[in-house]
Amino acid sequence: MSGNTIGTLFTVTTAGESHGPGLMAIVDGCPPGLELSVEDLQIELDRRKPGTSRHTTQRQEADEVEILSGVFEGRTTGCPIGLLIRNTDQKSKDYSAIKDLFRPAHADYTYHHKYGLRDYRGGGRSSARETAMRVAAGAIAKKYLASLGISVRGYMSQLGPIEIPFKSWEAVGQNAFFSPDPDKVPELEAYMDQLRRDQDSVGARITVVAEGVPPGLGEPIFDRLDAELAYALMSINAVKGVEVGAGFASVAQRGTEHRDELTPEGFVSNNAGGVLGGISSGQPIIAHLALKPTSSITTPGRSIDVDGNPVEVITKGRHDPCVGIRATPIAEAMMAIVLIDHLLRHRAQNAGVQVVTPVLGQL
Amino acid sequence: MSGNTIGTLFTVTTAGESHGPGLMAIVDGCPPGLELSVEDLQIELDRRKPGTSRHTTQRQEADEVEILSGVFEGRTTGCPIGLLIRNTDQKSKDYSAIKDLFRPAHADYTYHHKYGLRDYRGGGRSSARETAMRVAAGAIAKKYLASLGISVRGYMSQLGPIEIPFKSWEAVGQNAFFSPDPDKVPELEAYMDQLRRDQDSVGARITVVAEGVPPGLGEPIFDRLDAELAYALMSINAVKGVEVGAGFASVAQRGTEHRDELTPEGFVSNNAGGVLGGISSGQPIIAHLALKPTSSITTPGRSIDVDGNPVEVITKGRHDPCVGIRATPIAEAMMAIVLIDHLLRHRAQNAGVQVVTPVLGQL
Amino acid sequence: MSGNTIGTLFTVTTAGESHGPGLMAIVDGCPPGLELSVEDLQIELDRRKPGTSRHTTQRQEADEVEILSGVFEGRTTGCPIGLLIRNTDQKSKDYSAIKDLFRPAHADYTYHHKYGLRDYRGGGRSSARETAMRVAAGAIAKKYLASLGISVRGYMSQLGPIEIPFKSWEAVGQNAFFSPDPDKVPELEAYMDQLRRDQDSVGARITVVAEGVPPGLGEPIFDRLDAELAYALMSINAVKGVEVGAGFASVAQRGTEHRDELTPEGFVSNNAGGVLGGISSGQPIIAHLALKPTSSITTPGRSIDVDGNPVEVITKGRHDPCVGIRATPIAEAMMAIVLIDHLLRHRAQNAGVQVVTPVLGQL
Amino acid sequence: MSGNTIGTLFTVTTAGESHGPGLMAIVDGCPPGLELSVEDLQIELDRRKPGTSRHTTQRQEADEVEILSGVFEGRTTGCPIGLLIRNTDQKSKDYSAIKDLFRPAHADYTYHHKYGLRDYRGGGRSSARETAMRVAAGAIAKKYLASLGISVRGYMSQLGPIEIPFKSWEAVGQNAFFSPDPDKVPELEAYMDQLRRDQDSVGARITVVAEGVPPGLGEPIFDRLDAELAYALMSINAVKGVEVGAGFASVAQRGTEHRDELTPEGFVSNNAGGVLGGISSGQPIIAHLALKPTSSITTPGRSIDVDGNPVEVITKGRHDPCVGIRATPIAEAMMAIVLIDHLLRHRAQNAGVQVVTPVLGQL
Repeated sequence: MSGNTIGTLFTVTTAGESHGPGLMAIVDGCPPGLELSVEDLQIELDRRKPGTSRHTTQRQEADEVEILSGVFEGRTTGCPIGLLIRNTDQKSKDYSAIKDLFRPAHADYTYHHKYGLRDYRGGGRSSARETAMRVAAGAIAKKYLASLGISVRGYMSQLGPIEIPFKSWEAVGQNAFFSPDPDKVPELEAYMDQLRRDQDSVGARITVVAEGVPPGLGEPIFDRLDAELAYALMSINAVKGVEVGAGFASVAQRGTEHRDELTPEGFVSNNAGGVLGGISSGQPIIAHLALKPTSSITTPGRSIDVDGNPVEVITKGRHDPCVGIRATPIAEAMMAIVLIDHLLRHRAQNAGVQVVTPVLGQL
Repeated sequence: MSGNTIGTLFTVTTAGESHGPGLMAIVDGCPPGLELSVEDLQIELDRRKPGTSRHTTQRQEADEVEILSGVFEGRTTGCPIGLLIRNTDQKSKDYSAIKDLFRPAHADYTYHHKYGLRDYRGGGRSSARETAMRVAAGAIAKKYLASLGISVRGYMSQLGPIEIPFKSWEAVGQNAFFSPDPDKVPELEAYMDQLRRDQDSVGARITVVAEGVPPGLGEPIFDRLDAELAYALMSINAVKGVEVGAGFASVAQRGTEHRDELTPEGFVSNNAGGVLGGISSGQPIIAHLALKPTSSITTPGRSIDVDGNPVEVITKGRHDPCVGIRATPIAEAMMAIVLIDHLLRHRAQNAGVQVVTPVLGQL
Repeated sequence: MSGNTIGTLFTVTTAGESHGPGLMAIVDGCPPGLELSVEDLQIELDRRKPGTSRHTTQRQEADEVEILSGVFEGRTTGCPIGLLIRNTDQKSKDYSAIKDLFRPAHADYTYHHKYGLRDYRGGGRSSARETAMRVAAGAIAKKYLASLGISVRGYMSQLGPIEIPFKSWEAVGQNAFFSPDPDKVPELEAYMDQLRRDQDSVGARITVVAEGVPPGLGEPIFDRLDAELAYALMSINAVKGVEVGAGFASVAQRGTEHRDELTPEGFVSNNAGGVLGGISSGQPIIAHLALKPTSSITTPGRSIDVDGNPVEVITKGRHDPCVGIRATPIAEAMMAIVLIDHLLRHRAQNAGVQVVTPVLGQL
Repeated sequence: MSGNTIGTLFTVTTAGESHGPGLMAIVDGCPPGLELSVEDLQIELDRRKPGTSRHTTQRQEADEVEILSGVFEGRTTGCPIGLLIRNTDQKSKDYSAIKDLFRPAHADYTYHHKYGLRDYRGGGRSSARETAMRVAAGAIAKKYLASLGISVRGYMSQLGPIEIPFKSWEAVGQNAFFSPDPDKVPELEAYMDQLRRDQDSVGARITVVAEGVPPGLGEPIFDRLDAELAYALMSINAVKGVEVGAGFASVAQRGTEHRDELTPEGFVSNNAGGVLGGISSGQPIIAHLALKPTSSITTPGRSIDVDGNPVEVITKGRHDPCVGIRATPIAEAMMAIVLIDHLLRHRAQNAGVQVVTPVLGQL
């Protein structure tokens, strides 16, 4: 496969550049009979949409998605679902200032060496604008999972130096940061306002949780559920780290502390993050991801041009000072895509398996 | 694919259980003409082999590998390379004590629910014994990469609470811990000896570095080099987290701090870990992984049996008190497999690309 | 993969139904730097377009394709190429007559049992309308192959009982049948006119030839060049048989007759059809395909409805009396897609191979 | 994938050369709980084994298979099944006569140009010896299909010029030719004896039939059931053509003749060969394949050496004068592998589909 497709049975293939005519996706392998409408996708797209608060980019994109195929009389047919979003705010601005140089921490240098040419308008294919299609495709996955009682939800667990404790899912949808603690929001807003004055950007930590996942999803050895989650989450722009369950805290843990004991009432802890031996245990699947600070900042930085000469770069334009703020819906989408894919894979091989052992209650 | 294969063009498929007749692998897609002998593989297998110090399991496995195909007159033919390792120390011990219960933090519970039956002898397919074949396959990848001037090396960067600073590559091969700091070894030994007395286990952090990687490897969007590295490294038994470059430290970094500026002499830092936009930059590729503490410990733990009744579990046998100690060669193998695969993929699509911009010196 | 994607490195994923809003394709893996315009695609689409003679369906489809991504300043970027064709003649006609019954020789019965529901408008996804996107994608493959001196051309070699000898490539483009013998055209026209009066349809045989293909394309064992060609050509609607080289005539041949001897001047015959051991020999690649007669005819036929009751079916509407007539561009597209994919795969693994033995001249 | 793997969910990866240490296969994706023993595989291997009559090669290979993994206490575990066959009759004969030249109709020339070097002993990887592993893997697929009431059987339908009518399945197993007509056997024997005296070889036509296949298997568009069958059957050594149902006879058929009408009692004919729109209809799946005459014959032929000089080639050794004679078990294996793969794929996406329309009786 050529790098723009994810999944084995539930596959998502995307195309499109930041400042081209539009974005496309083909979602293949969705089971037939699922009720699906444009609104199901639009709700998720609107959660990711820029310009909804002063803390994100002011680029105006309606992000209106059109379903071109695979849905008939309100239900999926089992045939591929074609999605289209036209770009509406691709300003015909002058890119001559950056077309021949490499913005630090961007993909300019690497695309240049890989392909020998690149669409330099707004980062082209390397722009996070592509993630709109991940969110649209993920909405389909989420809807199918929901029909089986599986939820996938995320929140911001850290913004720069500010750790955000989990208080409630309700809070997450009620602020621009996806903060699960409403009391932290003023501090986050003040931090972001100062950051903008500093002409700087900052990283963030996002947590994603799937509940209601039955035991048995994931394949042994390479295509473990956690390995595929790591792949899917690391594939999001700006992500530099992925943890499952206790993650890097496991390094300093002892075995007696880390192991999640089992009782007839259920697991007594969840250091595993819901995955044992690469296969879901029935506990909540928990993953954390680290996003680096936005690369596009107006503080000048050193770089070189395509001829190797030193230049100074200032990235003007409309950019998120913290890409992590809009990353929660994207992370949810990726987890949902991995889960539905593994659900189908598990069903294929193990449809006939009968297990009498009771599934343990979730922690 | 069914979960036991990794790679797109350079593929590794493994089979075999901990206490079955043996382990197999088929390595497909290796370029023809590479000089390859059993010794090339055995050297790497011996680095991973158990029983070489008192700090690892005392299971005695010769781990002698046989090449069954794909090599003719000392060189690879381009046809699949078949590998075989016979298990020699699969004791016919009595497994009746564990066959009907679930050891905490093991894959017993999840395999049981996935397949409805399982090979309970030593963990069967879920045992880390399978990683022997990863190391053998990785040796082929490493040899090919070396022929292009690309090295892949790893070391232990933390054992439980003890952080280990990088001193030199030479030190790594001269102690049982893959410690890059020889002065830390006595402390590590003392810690392990106490751990054994405590009948406990501990986690570890491993760092892997590839040097000499040309810019351009990795595909945009999903099959990014860092995403595939995350997948490959997370697929190693006991791994709970993966970082590239600054990793989770990026969360608290500011953009002015994180971005690696470019000068005509090269990048001035490497927070990116050698990957920008999912594509290698020519800088060293740096990844870190977190391994959880060994699940098999002799301190009793609570669990249930297959009928849901509470039981107390003590995992006897010969187990590594820190699986991280032998993980370095495995992590190197996985990184090497990902790199050769992406090298071939890049070559396929971009063989004709001419770039005049000089590749920057490594940091 | 979920069935709507072809290829390993050069992949084509399509979506869209006969009477939905439109057709989409994402073409991934095209090498960067190829000059490509909408016109390159439109030329091929126009060759397949219906309604250009009285011998094909009178459905009016402009089949105007839009390139949504992957091309920048007139050249491919190496990123996925998104294609869109809006359906313009999807009449809102009344399908109630066929929505609950199965037209003989159509996919109605099998889609019904596979998915439990189906888009019955004009056959939905099973309609040959989908092949428009194959032709558009194939045009990209053909253009790249042409840049390397590789041509892919086809012609009709039999229409119903009328065998058509190969006279010249020039003739093929000068009649509605893709007949390589201009003298046969009046006979073909008379046959088709009678067929229409008979309210019947008929099969056809198409031949596709690739010239200029270097030796070495194709993988041993499963992914042989001929095996992948058989897959790709059999995947075209209505195809019931595929031959390479001598094909079924090989059954009655003797070894002394079939084997293509080699001389310093080249092979002396081409019974192999350009493929030996699954790998291209440098000779022309020759394949033949058999297309069944169009299923949609106005002569009544017996069938059943979804409840199992007997019904009589007459398929009205605008249908090709011989689907083979428009199949030549589709067959060329599929061969081109297979060839470029194998070209990239070969390049990946064997880029460094040096062979001094001269490539033999083509026959 | 690198060409030595077939399948999406039920995958078979093979390795091994004709005169190397042995053959390997890894069969991944087999559902757990299937009773499986070495004998199940050996029965099929013995049907393909050479040396059982005077009409096949006299090479003596025990073809004893060992199961190295994936089976525990007599049942499959769902983990990959590792298979091993040691080569026992790889004579250390002198290959210097052929190592630097290209035998006509063999893969010598193409492997040489693809890889730059090749294992010339007995054809190396290109030898039909590799098909032993296909048969072993196919035996697993057949056993699973049989547990669902699906049979896959084949027979020889033509040997050189002699057409063999279908009389009974019982007859097939009672002669060395897999002839379904016992009365034809003396004619076949006489033909083969004369052929040997002529120092020549001949082609054959094999027919494979699957019965009991439920409707719904196969994916639309590219991964159609018939397309994947064409791929799998064409991948067998020496195959030059594949037909499904009426095959090339469809070319001269009219729509009124070809279309298989439906009645409440079932389909009234089976020109489709059990596949409509790429998806199984519940009718028997019928495929035919054409095998070319054996390339290795003792009648001298013209060729060139690696330097381009003309040479005369006589292929001595122990060769089948008609490779088609032993091809029936191989063709059955390939059809079984395709069917189980599509069964799993169908189950994955459509497990929840409820169809009330009765499945029609088979024809």
